[in-house]
Amino acid sequence: MIKTPYLLFLGDAPDQLAAKVAIGIKDWRPENAVAQFRMEGCGADLGIADMSLQEAKDAGAKTLVIGVANRGGIISEAWKVVLKEALSMGYDLASGLHNLLRDEADLVETAAKFGCALHDVRIPSVQYPIANGIKRSGKRCLTVGTDCSVGKMYTAMAMDAEMRKRGLKSSFRATGQTGILIMGGGVPLDAVIADFMAGAVEYLTPDNDADHWDHIEGQGSLFHVSYSGVTMALIHGGQPDVLILGHEPTRTHMRGLPDYQQPSLEELRDMALALARVANPACQVVGISVNTQHMSEAEAISYLAEVEERMGLPTVDPIRIGAGRLVDAIQAL
Amino acid sequence: MIKTPYLLFLGDAPDQLAAKVAIGIKDWRPENAVAQFRMEGCGADLGIADMSLQEAKDAGAKTLVIGVANRGGIISEAWKVVLKEALSMGYDLASGLHNLLRDEADLVETAAKFGCALHDVRIPSVQYPIANGIKRSGKRCLTVGTDCSVGKMYTAMAMDAEMRKRGLKSSFRATGQTGILIMGGGVPLDAVIADFMAGAVEYLTPDNDADHWDHIEGQGSLFHVSYSGVTMALIHGGQPDVLILGHEPTRTHMRGLPDYQQPSLEELRDMALALARVANPACQVVGISVNTQHMSEAEAISYLAEVEERMGLPTVDPIRIGAGRLVDAIQAL
Repeated sequence: MIKTPYLLFLGDAPDQLAAKVAIGIKDWRPENAVAQFRMEGCGADLGIADMSLQEAKDAGAKTLVIGVANRGGIISEAWKVVLKEALSMGYDLASGLHNLLRDEADLVETAAKFGCALHDVRIPSVQYPIANGIKRSGKRCLTVGTDCSVGKMYTAMAMDAEMRKRGLKSSFRATGQTGILIMGGGVPLDAVIADFMAGAVEYLTPDNDADHWDHIEGQGSLFHVSYSGVTMALIHGGQPDVLILGHEPTRTHMRGLPDYQQPSLEELRDMALALARVANPACQVVGISVNTQHMSEAEAISYLAEVEERMGLPTVDPIRIGAGRLVDAIQAL
Repeated sequence: MIKTPYLLFLGDAPDQLAAKVAIGIKDWRPENAVAQFRMEGCGADLGIADMSLQEAKDAGAKTLVIGVANRGGIISEAWKVVLKEALSMGYDLASGLHNLLRDEADLVETAAKFGCALHDVRIPSVQYPIANGIKRSGKRCLTVGTDCSVGKMYTAMAMDAEMRKRGLKSSFRATGQTGILIMGGGVPLDAVIADFMAGAVEYLTPDNDADHWDHIEGQGSLFHVSYSGVTMALIHGGQPDVLILGHEPTRTHMRGLPDYQQPSLEELRDMALALARVANPACQVVGISVNTQHMSEAEAISYLAEVEERMGLPTVDPIRIGAGRLVDAIQAL
């Protein structure tokens, strides 16, 4: 686990988009975000306090999280000045960059000198077991999508937040680097060795109280040929009790695959449910999460109503409307 | 690629079962098996010539293949005497052991000194791409099973052998260590990083002549929760034109999963075909391969006839009966 709370390092992020990870942390775990650290020329702003390393340290920050995509795929010398100073003050570092902290000799040396940890959340730090398929106690919810990047993480985050708001027992279980940094832990599933994928998901969602819900972050899509194996491992390793269908209706083709079309929600429902019932015969589809960010308010409302009517399931955009009705559906089980 | 032909190292194998890899090579690529090398106390015998390292070298052998499971998970000092002598004579070494050749400092040093290669076929040696899903030329056949270890590799090997016997263009494409050692190349799919599994299968089965058939070695099962993600990647990365259903009828539960039952052949057919058509809408199921090794001849014949009648597809045991009718089905397309 990564020590919380964080100082969020935005560096010289060219724009708001580059600070996606930091924005996710600030939105979903504001209690983990003590402040932001911006360098000269930074074009991103989280709307929280700017602090120096010392000020944030005094305010309780334990880890400096690189919440920004780096330029040119390298950790620049300008960044390193800050990162090394942070290590010398006792901060751990955490990053989801492809360019690993552990591959930078001077950072490794400085971290060792001051007894600090370097967390590269893209790389598994655990030898996961092979899945055993044994039924676990507690409840699990998984969002499966018609495509990649349709809002599966946000759906799970929003459902978890809503359940906790209602005083229910709930955890978000991160399977990607952004989710892991937000939560301070999880499994970077796309970097796990094939044989251990489903076992990693079992490890991530262990036995729990009978009335506790894990909201497992989905990945890929059963219909996306590049990543469907990862989705399959989530469905069988997660043994979900409940599936939410995720969809982004304005796509003209599958993400990154111009020759492939998104399946219908009906096709997704039938395929995902049949596969999920291999691991959990009681699994049900209870709702639909639509990402309407590229639609007007009127278009979105009309589209959600149309899908709800057609599919006979509560249909929401958890960002635009909230995840309350998805949680209602779980509570009604 | 591993240099062929081989001298097959059986070491001090306690029994025939321990020499499974060597038996596979001798059965399926006898032209790759110059001779066997047995140490004192060896309880296995391939029924081919015994030769010394020098005799096999003179007969053309280029690689010493460890065709045996090692005792206690270690490469023993007794083995190493032979392995180092082989390296000093210019042999490459190849192994599918969990205990890697590359982790033995003395073997690494000896190999470097004599300019020889150490092939650990369990470990990917290539940075595979992410799958792009683009339709490739040539034809592909994949066996999908109701369970793991139902004879998918043997089915693919037998179909490949039969097609080549008929003068048709055909390749076996190995995805596991035994198959890789038999063929001298392939992809160790269960050891590939999750994000690259489907891309590794695309890499393994590239564009080819329009009338060429790849027989892709299957892995796992869509219904085996530990490994279904690997199977999924084979179905989407392989974009098969043809599926063969594989089955072992005497199992009382899924291999290693006492709480899970095998699906029916109908369930397997419907699930696998729907998923395969995501990548190749023209995909068809054309035959069934049953592993009847645990049945009497009479039981087997009766069972095969019953399944053939029920499923309306040619149904054979490729070991007991041959794969001819499966190849007939492909030729009839």
